[in-house]
Amino acid sequence: MLELKKKIILASASPRRQELLRQIGIDFEVRTSSVDEIFDRSISPERNAVRLAELKAFEVANDFDDAFIIGADTIVVINDEILGKPANDEDAFMILKKLSGTEHRVFTGFAIVDKPSNKYISDYEETVVKFRELDDDEILSYIKSKSPNDKAGAYGIQDDFGSVFVERINGCFYNVVGFPISKFYITLKNFQKEIELWIEK
Amino acid sequence: MLELKKKIILASASPRRQELLRQIGIDFEVRTSSVDEIFDRSISPERNAVRLAELKAFEVANDFDDAFIIGADTIVVINDEILGKPANDEDAFMILKKLSGTEHRVFTGFAIVDKPSNKYISDYEETVVKFRELDDDEILSYIKSKSPNDKAGAYGIQDDFGSVFVERINGCFYNVVGFPISKFYITLKNFQKEIELWIEK
Repeated sequence: MLELKKKIILASASPRRQELLRQIGIDFEVRTSSVDEIFDRSISPERNAVRLAELKAFEVANDFDDAFIIGADTIVVINDEILGKPANDEDAFMILKKLSGTEHRVFTGFAIVDKPSNKYISDYEETVVKFRELDDDEILSYIKSKSPNDKAGAYGIQDDFGSVFVERINGCFYNVVGFPISKFYITLKNFQKEIELWIEK
Repeated sequence: MLELKKKIILASASPRRQELLRQIGIDFEVRTSSVDEIFDRSISPERNAVRLAELKAFEVANDFDDAFIIGADTIVVINDEILGKPANDEDAFMILKKLSGTEHRVFTGFAIVDKPSNKYISDYEETVVKFRELDDDEILSYIKSKSPNDKAGAYGIQDDFGSVFVERINGCFYNVVGFPISKFYITLKNFQKEIELWIEK
């Protein structure tokens, strides 16, 4: 698909993000960052997602001389409350009860850092997700499957249960999975061109 | 997930539908129908999708004594024009040019027929899909991959290219893949209860 001029480094341990990059035919290496996912309440959720994506990409970029380094961060928001990854099963239950029957917003920020120039670009996508009313039984069965554990908002829209919990979305589906591949693809395509033009000058 | 009381028969050869049913943990057998997918211009696209889903399910139901038989049909509509499966590469190109930079609607109708009672239920989902502007080069590369061939609207939202063509959707994502698993799941759950109550009476 996209002809890549540089090695791609993904600064994320998320298996979903890795799968999505593979889906659009991008070869990459994984190098995880040690950035703490701390939320800054003085700025919006989307600015937080972008800021964390940039921090992750720049930290990992230190280890490379010639590559594009990709960072990403997903934040789930309901009524101005941030829903992180569940701390335990009780927390997962509380989060899923909150999502039941209502709408929430998912933001994924991403950043691409070029080495050696240190030029970078970042952006985000927002998707509105509507859950149907969930029975407590369904929530408990889902928690038993362990799938909510490592996911912001305690669900995966691509899971067995997650996919039947979600009634509809408005925006990019893959953004909810954890990486907005459509916007990322165009952004990377344009960024690569800019870097080439900049080198030629 | 859902505890099924009967064998499930899927009256569809679509590998996408089979994968989606597996995703939500439903075991099934495949038995394809020989129903011609002929569009009736006197009724709406959604009614056509439901009607064809019912025809497929009832045809296959003739061969079973005790089962739930599932039929489905997906219709893609742009400005009141139906976009079928492409007849050839030129047709696929024309269809994708039409979708480029604009919105279209995807309807999937589904039907569940119970044997031996011959009771049935049917419904549909509608999703609005927005494509970004596509380059002719991208369209040609996608056609070369053969992926558009067997798909209504000449794309798969879960494909390598398809997933970067789609900017956003409004509605159920899996409906665009070819089967609205969220609505189907609830419909099957309720239908199964109704059939049980009806048998007990």
